[in-house]
Amino acid sequence: MTTSPTSLDHALHAIADPTRRRILGALKRGPASTTAPAIGKHAGLCAGDIEERVHLSQPTISHHMAILTKAGLVDAEKQGQWRWYRRNEKALRRLVKGLRTQL
Amino acid sequence: MTTSPTSLDHALHAIADPTRRRILGALKRGPASTTAPAIGKHAGLCAGDIEERVHLSQPTISHHMAILTKAGLVDAEKQGQWRWYRRNEKALRRLVKGLRTQL
Repeated sequence: MTTSPTSLDHALHAIADPTRRRILGALKRGPASTTAPAIGKHAGLCAGDIEERVHLSQPTISHHMAILTKAGLVDAEKQGQWRWYRRNEKALRRLVKGLRTQL
Repeated sequence: MTTSPTSLDHALHAIADPTRRRILGALKRGPASTTAPAIGKHAGLCAGDIEERVHLSQPTISHHMAILTKAGLVDAEKQGQWRWYRRNEKALRRLVKGLRTQL
């Protein structure tokens, strides 16, 4: 499967920002507690966990999470009052592969 | 050798734009004539060649070439009245590798 130009554009825009790469790094390390719910195969982080790790305000994090989610690099799931996030590893691999092919 | 965050930021910003990826594609195909001078190991393209291939105005191309050159993804060399450009393959490989490592 090849990455279409449009999805590659969105993904590259998303990861061109160093803060969003830091957030992806925080999500990679996964949850500290064992109480975090599993989203799909992997445990996720809520916005509060991300806030603690990257030291940014809640609105700033919401802004970045919206871009990462729209680009398909992060999956979000609402459970009760909280929204949980996890990396979409398949999309991240596809991004690197698509870039290598197109460059 | 690892890509420093700053150079990776510049490189990702440069290739996040689809027009600049088209320009890198045009440079990959190389010169049509055999009269283009070799810059380093590879033959280069002048701004006029790039203009013909990507169908954009000269100022627009100059703008994009400045960003690609500053990011280190393209090398530029002035010969007489003309400026010749070629891809920096090493930097492009380093970008993909750095991204894969950081993501």
